[in-house]
Amino acid sequence: MSDIPEALRAAIATVEPPDPAWAARAGDRQARLTMPAGSLGRLLEIGRQLAAIQRTDRPSGGPALIAVFAADHGVAVEGVSAFPAEVTGQMVANYLRGGAAVNVLARRAGATVRVADLGVAHLPRGLAESIAFASRPIRRGTSHFLEGPAMSRAEAFQAVSTGWELAGSWVVPASVAAIGEMGIGNSTTAAALAAALTGSPPDRVVGRGTGVDDRGFLRKREVVVAALARHAAGIADVWDWLARVGGFEILGLAGFALGAAARRSLVVLDGFISTVAGLIAARLCPAAVGSMLASHQGTEPGHRIVLDALGLSPILDLDLRLGEGTGAALALPIIASAGDILRDMATFDAAGVSGPSDADQRFLSS
Amino acid sequence: MSDIPEALRAAIATVEPPDPAWAARAGDRQARLTMPAGSLGRLLEIGRQLAAIQRTDRPSGGPALIAVFAADHGVAVEGVSAFPAEVTGQMVANYLRGGAAVNVLARRAGATVRVADLGVAHLPRGLAESIAFASRPIRRGTSHFLEGPAMSRAEAFQAVSTGWELAGSWVVPASVAAIGEMGIGNSTTAAALAAALTGSPPDRVVGRGTGVDDRGFLRKREVVVAALARHAAGIADVWDWLARVGGFEILGLAGFALGAAARRSLVVLDGFISTVAGLIAARLCPAAVGSMLASHQGTEPGHRIVLDALGLSPILDLDLRLGEGTGAALALPIIASAGDILRDMATFDAAGVSGPSDADQRFLSS
Repeated sequence: MSDIPEALRAAIATVEPPDPAWAARAGDRQARLTMPAGSLGRLLEIGRQLAAIQRTDRPSGGPALIAVFAADHGVAVEGVSAFPAEVTGQMVANYLRGGAAVNVLARRAGATVRVADLGVAHLPRGLAESIAFASRPIRRGTSHFLEGPAMSRAEAFQAVSTGWELAGSWVVPASVAAIGEMGIGNSTTAAALAAALTGSPPDRVVGRGTGVDDRGFLRKREVVVAALARHAAGIADVWDWLARVGGFEILGLAGFALGAAARRSLVVLDGFISTVAGLIAARLCPAAVGSMLASHQGTEPGHRIVLDALGLSPILDLDLRLGEGTGAALALPIIASAGDILRDMATFDAAGVSGPSDADQRFLSS
Repeated sequence: MSDIPEALRAAIATVEPPDPAWAARAGDRQARLTMPAGSLGRLLEIGRQLAAIQRTDRPSGGPALIAVFAADHGVAVEGVSAFPAEVTGQMVANYLRGGAAVNVLARRAGATVRVADLGVAHLPRGLAESIAFASRPIRRGTSHFLEGPAMSRAEAFQAVSTGWELAGSWVVPASVAAIGEMGIGNSTTAAALAAALTGSPPDRVVGRGTGVDDRGFLRKREVVVAALARHAAGIADVWDWLARVGGFEILGLAGFALGAAARRSLVVLDGFISTVAGLIAARLCPAAVGSMLASHQGTEPGHRIVLDALGLSPILDLDLRLGEGTGAALALPIIASAGDILRDMATFDAAGVSGPSDADQRFLSS
């Protein structure tokens, strides 16, 4: 569309897919390491993905950063969450004090936490900009998307651009960038986006989020069905959906994911909402999908649908439904290990270990 | 049976189950932490398990140790493995030099690796006993169990006792003890033990191990069927099965698991073979099951059957089939994180975060 800012269009066009030649070279190296060929399964796949992204057969699974984007949602007035909207800002303060789950898990994983305010309605006083915190509100919460578009197209461009720029500031090239989110009501927004982008029936992508009760759950389903019906007419491109039923933090994360992929970093998705951000990134730039990794299978029913749309399989099965990057944080040591294996393991030759006794050496092929 | 050594019988009787009262106290604390109640799913379960084992609501998910037990198997002469039997001893040397996969993964997890020789046939020269290596061979490999019992009952008692004693030397009380194994041919032994202990048809528990070819796979299945048929008559107790179709490292690990549970440590199972060791421990002492955690779902078909027999669900899904404790090593940071959450996260009160808006507070109940 002609209203897409040229700078944003040009930025997205710089994202390159991972290079399969480096994945193949890493695979050759893996076959010489002291283990039966392929016996570390998906850990080896992750190693090859890191190699393809970083263009080396000795890739690094770090340093890792967890970017938590926060914003509020007009639709929260419908009672679709168990928590009041004030919690979004309170949790931002909690992240900056280091007391939230994502902080605890990040410390264990040796990862840095960065927090971005893309539009928090009630931000506690005294939260100064810092190396750990960027306040770039598009607006202090989206509009209620049952009453009109959640935001304008210009705001949607701005949210994605802001995420892209924050990746430029925060993401070390050839590293690992995990994405997480906070926003009371945002699993309703994510469900509307998931239904819009995948074509799934709304009732299949709506879940209980962080724990809404039966009444709230039924209302949430009604809201998503009504939102899709209200906005379906006259959709010209994906940006129309993003503006009409989107959220500032989700669009910001999509831009951040693209920016991280452009910096040849692995993008680690968390739960349903951040995976919707990944799907948006993929729709804006299909080349970015190869730089993404799904950390966990959450309990939200739409999560699997969005992962399937991306063609990704998660590595952890922990029944998580918190978001804020917690599942991604738990996957970081596994990702780091995938790099370690390629860099630090002994080869059969170097260790004096005999290979398979089968003369045709078929077990050394990957 | 009256031939079970009294010292071994008395030792096993000291294993206590985890204390559910401490799990409940940990659950109360989890409900006050700044997240929707229960939203960290199985991570919270692991936290409650650690609490119940350690008798505290501020449990620790470490320090962690990975014990790799190695031994050789008479049945390996049947061509049931892709690798020659020399590899068992060569890999022991590789572990002690730090070049194997488990070493690389242990370093990332901050875990210590300990290696035990329970009966390696071809141990390379120059491997001295050290703090990292205990050589306690029961015999230099089991007998071929298609020709007679793999070992005597006395040797079975000795293998389990040796594992128990090594836990006493190595496992820090109230810590995390992962178990891994190395032994060319030991997935055949484990399949025979799994069929014997669970009653599953032998062909359902036989897989390709680390990668045997079609001919080897068919032979492996024949061998397990024949072993079960040969030894089924006159089985008086579980020890008879352990002696007739067992392996020194597998029985050693069962004793090690019991010793670690007696020291109020979490026992982390790895793949099919170490999970069979866990099942043996559970059959010798049902109280020990509550101290076990399944790290991953491997590709070996018998793994799920043995996990089901233990009532355990794995947390990682990485298509691993290496053994040597690698899957358990990958789970260690997640286990450590489960302890961190209970010790380090902020509560709603302390962080000034509002709880659920639902007046009945049902989301605060676990």
